Amino acid sequence: MEKVLIYDTTLRDGTQGEGISLSVEDKLKIALRLDQFGVHYIEGGWPGSNPKDMEFFQKAKELPLTTSKITAFGSTRRHGVTADQDENLQRLLESGVSTVTIFGKTWDFQVTHALNTTLEENLDMIFESVQFLKSHGLEVIFDAEHFFDGYKANPAYALKTLRKAEEGGADWIVLCDTNGGTLPHEIETIVVAVKQTLTTPIGVHCHNDSECAVANTLAAVRAGARQVQGTMNGYGERCGNANLVSVIPNLQVKLGYTCVKKEQLGSLTSLSRYIHEIANVVPPNNQPFVGMSAFAHKGGMHVSAVLKSPETYEHLAPERVGNTRRVLVSELSGQSNLLYKAQELNIDLDKSNPACKRIIQNIKEMEHEGYQYEGAEASFELLLREGLGEVIEAFTIEFFNILVEKTANWQIKTMAVVKVRVFDEVVLEAAEGNGPVNAFDNALRKALESFYPEIKHMHLSDYKVRVLDGGGATAAKVKVLIESSNGKDKWSTVGVSTNIIEASWQALSDSFRYFLLKQKGNMVECVKAEVK
Amino acid sequence: MEKVLIYDTTLRDGTQGEGISLSVEDKLKIALRLDQFGVHYIEGGWPGSNPKDMEFFQKAKELPLTTSKITAFGSTRRHGVTADQDENLQRLLESGVSTVTIFGKTWDFQVTHALNTTLEENLDMIFESVQFLKSHGLEVIFDAEHFFDGYKANPAYALKTLRKAEEGGADWIVLCDTNGGTLPHEIETIVVAVKQTLTTPIGVHCHNDSECAVANTLAAVRAGARQVQGTMNGYGERCGNANLVSVIPNLQVKLGYTCVKKEQLGSLTSLSRYIHEIANVVPPNNQPFVGMSAFAHKGGMHVSAVLKSPETYEHLAPERVGNTRRVLVSELSGQSNLLYKAQELNIDLDKSNPACKRIIQNIKEMEHEGYQYEGAEASFELLLREGLGEVIEAFTIEFFNILVEKTANWQIKTMAVVKVRVFDEVVLEAAEGNGPVNAFDNALRKALESFYPEIKHMHLSDYKVRVLDGGGATAAKVKVLIESSNGKDKWSTVGVSTNIIEASWQALSDSFRYFLLKQKGNMVECVKAEVK
Repeated sequence: MEKVLIYDTTLRDGTQGEGISLSVEDKLKIALRLDQFGVHYIEGGWPGSNPKDMEFFQKAKELPLTTSKITAFGSTRRHGVTADQDENLQRLLESGVSTVTIFGKTWDFQVTHALNTTLEENLDMIFESVQFLKSHGLEVIFDAEHFFDGYKANPAYALKTLRKAEEGGADWIVLCDTNGGTLPHEIETIVVAVKQTLTTPIGVHCHNDSECAVANTLAAVRAGARQVQGTMNGYGERCGNANLVSVIPNLQVKLGYTCVKKEQLGSLTSLSRYIHEIANVVPPNNQPFVGMSAFAHKGGMHVSAVLKSPETYEHLAPERVGNTRRVLVSELSGQSNLLYKAQELNIDLDKSNPACKRIIQNIKEMEHEGYQYEGAEASFELLLREGLGEVIEAFTIEFFNILVEKTANWQIKTMAVVKVRVFDEVVLEAAEGNGPVNAFDNALRKALESFYPEIKHMHLSDYKVRVLDGGGATAAKVKVLIESSNGKDKWSTVGVSTNIIEASWQALSDSFRYFLLKQKGNMVECVKAEVK
Repeated sequence: MEKVLIYDTTLRDGTQGEGISLSVEDKLKIALRLDQFGVHYIEGGWPGSNPKDMEFFQKAKELPLTTSKITAFGSTRRHGVTADQDENLQRLLESGVSTVTIFGKTWDFQVTHALNTTLEENLDMIFESVQFLKSHGLEVIFDAEHFFDGYKANPAYALKTLRKAEEGGADWIVLCDTNGGTLPHEIETIVVAVKQTLTTPIGVHCHNDSECAVANTLAAVRAGARQVQGTMNGYGERCGNANLVSVIPNLQVKLGYTCVKKEQLGSLTSLSRYIHEIANVVPPNNQPFVGMSAFAHKGGMHVSAVLKSPETYEHLAPERVGNTRRVLVSELSGQSNLLYKAQELNIDLDKSNPACKRIIQNIKEMEHEGYQYEGAEASFELLLREGLGEVIEAFTIEFFNILVEKTANWQIKTMAVVKVRVFDEVVLEAAEGNGPVNAFDNALRKALESFYPEIKHMHLSDYKVRVLDGGGATAAKVKVLIESSNGKDKWSTVGVSTNIIEASWQALSDSFRYFLLKQKGNMVECVKAEVK
């Protein structure tokens, strides 16, 4: 199995993405995970560009890395100075890494129009910069900026720049599709041409402006490239870089190359989500290989086929990349989805059980009202257990009253009063809040804590509102999704109404009920015991 | 220029995506826009699967379409019944469309394992179903499900299924990568092989499980396919379908095929955002071609190079797809953006005007708070005119009070009281509503109508809530976007607060103010005149 080396630039090119910002601490944490995952190179930053990056290189020396080499990024020397006088090259040496990556221009138009120098001087800049860094004992990767555009415009000159890097002693020559506009068939043809004129190993660096960055990277490898540069989750300037989270399983599982160990590939999903978490990006559900929906099956027919033989609707086994199969329950789905879900929840449900039909009917009616259970698995479990007679109301709200008031020159005041009954006992509580839903949440929590003190250990971790039918404007129906956590597990619940307070109340009370169910097992028993 | 036909299945396969749910009204709106954009086929749904889809086909007959054909989706007949007895085929006829698409199995393993029938019977099912639909005078598209997997497993049988569709008289044979696991080089080889054995025109239908759906679609076209199936924004089951928003400009601008007219391609960005809006999906900033960041340049070297010669860092001119170049962050770029916007609104603003700097500062602060003016141009115009001293408050709210109350066994009651001042006059009004925001809207409208009776002629046409920072749960900040209309024009306004009532109040009052401004011209004058 031939090896392809993974060069990760999440920490440098990835942070060029709009909205992506990583502290030095964040970068160190990510570097550690990338090392565990087994990438070969971690590009840490551009030490010549800002002090934060230099701080990273200082601290990265302490990281207990086992696989990855930390690399520093920079450019060829400026024109008009010698390599040993160039500040940027100096910073690369100071960063203390053993591998450096420098980019140089290969497109004649860029040399004369952006760099404002001569084609000849640019060749010298490349040669001398590589040679200078090699003379300091470093491994040198040459990133050929705009190479594919350059080759299309002036192949002779573009190839000449690469040969200069080779003469300077570069260990790798990496062909960059900087503007992301090249298509896979072009990449393949051009990489083949380059392979014929160089002996240095070739890498590739793609951007996603044509939505072909992954395919372009694969095309380059098939044509002979043996290093792939990209970022985790495809972060990066404009439309992002080649997404290594998709590139790696494609190379390894589908094309038979070796990138990381099999068990490391099995941690791909958790790596991807960890990095989203640190970068504060909501993981896209539909992200290939690792998304929540990547192996989710909705249609009834699909589901029964998948349960029999997964390969009927899965391009690979989700475990290989550490993801899991999910069966979604929706109006489009049938009995097999329901039975699968029940099994997942350890609920004994046979298709001959007459409750089945009733529950499916119930789901269909609720979905028609606007409820969606795909993202609200806890509400779904409650609905299922209720259908089987396993759950009763842990509490009922006898009365509530929410007041939002604004007087001239005063902040808005929000207060809620809630009266809750648990069997024969009743309690009335009031609370303030940031807004009507928050005040209601605070008051309800106060009231419930007197019956169920364990509610202190759970909190709401996310709150989403969606207007279902915008056409009704402020009279429209809204769907509220609430995610809750006890610090260990997370669960999601849903509510729907034209009144945002009512929708929130439904989702909140489902969340409390679900938590109590999990805490105490069978709800009917627990509530009776609690109250008596 | 050779033609490639666009087959859009946003309304059918797109709604299989997790979290994507479209009402019949939504689907009709989208169909109208797809027609304007110039797609050739609009797959409206699967009439045999649910009543909602059948309703769409009934109503779609009334749409004033000029380009697109509406198509209905279904499967080949079930085994064991004749085509004319098959309910699903019957529904296709009843849908009243002139083009139908039916899918059939082509992978031997699927026939025996998922369909539980014989390979021979499956061939009959394909032939008879196509023939039956053709005998009713319909254009028939045969979707060869799992074709690429089928071909890899048993090429002879897979090709035989296609020939059966051809013998039955299919107008198009579309090769589907149903599981999304095939890579571009495989697609190319297989399409070439198919072309050699068929005379019927070929199409392709790809899924994005390997993050190669766009590249796969392009590979198929290069190999001879002349119809591409996909969805707008790549919605669809699991990781989605081939994203037509990327496929179309790649085919047309880069590969030289003709899909839509040049001016239609120029509306690609607004089409993509419109569909995101209807589907209530946050448009990904990094979406190729149409994302907010797709042509965004960060400060420094890139920016000055791009301003000199855009092709240095842009793979195509953003105007070709209706997107715009953005220069991020710098004070300078802020000013040029502002001047550009002012010009668009016919506002006389010179860069020497000291208000410029103040307005930019104000925008920056508001955006930091979570306001976004891209989707709220009316609020932006008010902010700009206020900065120039052109607008004053048409009214102030002296006091409001909103009460939401629920008693046992009673519906929730919602009431609002609002006290509004216009110069020296004050009015107090109360109203009920479906929810707190609706009650507030009703009361405010009642109060304002006594000063500005023309408010009767405007109404709110859309209301959207988005939680800005989910982590704070019910205490999180929300952004409210309101769209209003006077039956002719539409305008959008924004409000941000932790309190949904306050955020709604901001957006509502901006909407009323904007309407009055447009009705009466200069606000300062009009309000004074009104009151005196």
